Amino acid sequence: MRTSQLFTQTNKMTLADEVAKNAQLLIRAGFVYKEMAGAYAYLPLGLRVLDNIKQIVREEMNAIGSNELIMTTLQRKEIWEKTTRWSDDVVDIWFKTRLKDETEVGLGWSHEEPIVEMMKQYIHSFKDLPVSLYQFQTKMRNELRVKSGIMRGREFVMKDMYSFHATAEDLEQYYEQAKEAYMRVYRRLGIGDDTFITFASGGAFTKFSHEFQTICDAGEDVIYVHRAKNIAVNEEILEDAVKELGINPDELEKVKTAEVGNIFNFGTQKTDEMGLYYTDKDNQQKSLHIGSYGIGITRVMGVIAEKMSDERGLVWPENIAPYRVYLVRIGDEESVVKAADDMYKTIEDAGVSVLYDDSDKRPGEKFSDADLIGLPHRIVVSAKTIEAGQIEYKARTSSEAEMISQEMLINRLTRG
Amino acid sequence: MRTSQLFTQTNKMTLADEVAKNAQLLIRAGFVYKEMAGAYAYLPLGLRVLDNIKQIVREEMNAIGSNELIMTTLQRKEIWEKTTRWSDDVVDIWFKTRLKDETEVGLGWSHEEPIVEMMKQYIHSFKDLPVSLYQFQTKMRNELRVKSGIMRGREFVMKDMYSFHATAEDLEQYYEQAKEAYMRVYRRLGIGDDTFITFASGGAFTKFSHEFQTICDAGEDVIYVHRAKNIAVNEEILEDAVKELGINPDELEKVKTAEVGNIFNFGTQKTDEMGLYYTDKDNQQKSLHIGSYGIGITRVMGVIAEKMSDERGLVWPENIAPYRVYLVRIGDEESVVKAADDMYKTIEDAGVSVLYDDSDKRPGEKFSDADLIGLPHRIVVSAKTIEAGQIEYKARTSSEAEMISQEMLINRLTRG
Repeated sequence: MRTSQLFTQTNKMTLADEVAKNAQLLIRAGFVYKEMAGAYAYLPLGLRVLDNIKQIVREEMNAIGSNELIMTTLQRKEIWEKTTRWSDDVVDIWFKTRLKDETEVGLGWSHEEPIVEMMKQYIHSFKDLPVSLYQFQTKMRNELRVKSGIMRGREFVMKDMYSFHATAEDLEQYYEQAKEAYMRVYRRLGIGDDTFITFASGGAFTKFSHEFQTICDAGEDVIYVHRAKNIAVNEEILEDAVKELGINPDELEKVKTAEVGNIFNFGTQKTDEMGLYYTDKDNQQKSLHIGSYGIGITRVMGVIAEKMSDERGLVWPENIAPYRVYLVRIGDEESVVKAADDMYKTIEDAGVSVLYDDSDKRPGEKFSDADLIGLPHRIVVSAKTIEAGQIEYKARTSSEAEMISQEMLINRLTRG
Repeated sequence: MRTSQLFTQTNKMTLADEVAKNAQLLIRAGFVYKEMAGAYAYLPLGLRVLDNIKQIVREEMNAIGSNELIMTTLQRKEIWEKTTRWSDDVVDIWFKTRLKDETEVGLGWSHEEPIVEMMKQYIHSFKDLPVSLYQFQTKMRNELRVKSGIMRGREFVMKDMYSFHATAEDLEQYYEQAKEAYMRVYRRLGIGDDTFITFASGGAFTKFSHEFQTICDAGEDVIYVHRAKNIAVNEEILEDAVKELGINPDELEKVKTAEVGNIFNFGTQKTDEMGLYYTDKDNQQKSLHIGSYGIGITRVMGVIAEKMSDERGLVWPENIAPYRVYLVRIGDEESVVKAADDMYKTIEDAGVSVLYDDSDKRPGEKFSDADLIGLPHRIVVSAKTIEAGQIEYKARTSSEAEMISQEMLINRLTRG
């Protein structure tokens, strides 16, 4: 894509009404636009990052046999009353509104109750089990305060998955598969090394649930990590967990983190409350076991923007960068334009996504845009590089540019 | 995809609370689930159709230089007050709710005002023009009555595009391009022959706007078509148009239609009201011209379900079918399973999407599922076809099955 054809604009100002580093950077680099506190539009560059994150999540959920669907924002009161969660005293982040006939409806902040309700239509016998479904949904949560940029919004994108099983054992097995799928997701997103499966408080059916916590200064959580045992524990349940898991508290390291996912074993509580059952081989009515698995898609993008950035701008990991290469043309002589156009075509033909800065901005501006936008690879075509018969290359993570051959460049961009 | 791995279920019952044929069929075939009147979940098969429609629309909007973004559902009151459209007397389909601090907010039923507001941050000079942006958004409209299935919902997916121009001429040129892009979309969706660009009432700046109307018995509109001149006119403006366009009213054919898109030239009205201007080459402040272009994605899916179906079920056009081939295995002998598995692999390897019914349902049930789900091509592998060294093939639109060779099958599925 040429910058002349892309709707994008960098902006060097500091934004007075935005305290979060992730939103500051993403707004300045042209990835998001703030519509109101806690609600952001995603401009073309930002949308590409979201789509890349979603695609990784999609592939890993599909790989554990889950099927994608999309449910609704509008929520029926009756469904949520079955579990007492319609009440604003029980759930304090509902947005509610009314139909023309005054029927009260809610805006989905979760889809646990509606999917259990829906499955009454599709699950009857043991033959219909197990089943796992997920969606990418825009969730609405009426948060009192929102000052973490896209890390916590009133409107945000979440991948939520729900699995339905005949037995506790079958759910537990799937739960373990989901755990592994989640870690694969974080590794592919480039935050695997800093993300810990963390014990958190459970429910009626399990001692613990699991959170996925990523080390992040802007995070709102604190966890305790036992590196040798590769165990992490949420602050809330520290005491319990130390006892239960037999950890020496002195060996725990306290770190600030952001939650990037959580998984929950509901057992049969919710299905019992809502009346979703199946009949087994002997035609007996049995309780269903369900699990719930969430990843905040926009939140993960915010965490990555916080963690992977420096004083010059964003530093996108290879797998989710909106484009992989930032091609800078310096000069507008015919020979330079031709060489840069050719290079653009060569990179695209190699199947590598590239943003081609064909503007008439000064070189310094182009370089600072490249740093702010943060694509992994920057290359320069100029009279000087043409004369040398080479290309100037700089990785976003490096401070040194180097001259390399076109062959070496393409090798670098297409290997593994 | 094997049916054993796909979350889908057909259902032969008549649905008492659903009067629309499109929703009846789509629910029975396992494409959608009704969450409440006017709000439907899209199950895996339905989501694939939506994605296919979106991808066609996306390609055609990109082809006229538009850029995809995604805006927010939450809407600020102040922005809509600028054009008086916050008022429920002016716009009677608002859903509104409140933040914790009692600030009133709306749920987006259109994004005209918010995108004009947003562009104040990005459009300053003639150099920033023209620009065209679009999104696939879940719109919320508090309709009094909803009985047209997914053709008119309280919550539905829309592609809305907005273009910004320095001059009326530039907008008009783009408007013509968009018109052509829209007709390309409908042709690719398989409803091109039945879709008419229709004159409808304009605004302050143009005599007429344009609707795209598709012949459909379930439609809510009536248009008058002049086939020889290839002109169509909306009922509302018939008198005016007959005069203005010099049509003989006797030559008009009255048809029932559903609106599948509309485009609108706003001139400078909205940008003037909201205070979005640009500076021209002489540094003079000038008014901006904008156009607005909508396609109801879920509505189009509903119209296609209405039009392209028969007493046995849905009949998807090739380009938007969730899968192109329905592969039926009859029998569970080892040789049949192996032959069907091989055929499944052969079709997938040819790059053709296929739904493989590997269930233990009776042949009659499998055939009626195939008809109800409505994929374009049905093929059967059984002991009989193996013995014949051929495959049984039937197009969804044909009532006759025929025996053909594997080579001929792959040819048929992969040719242009």
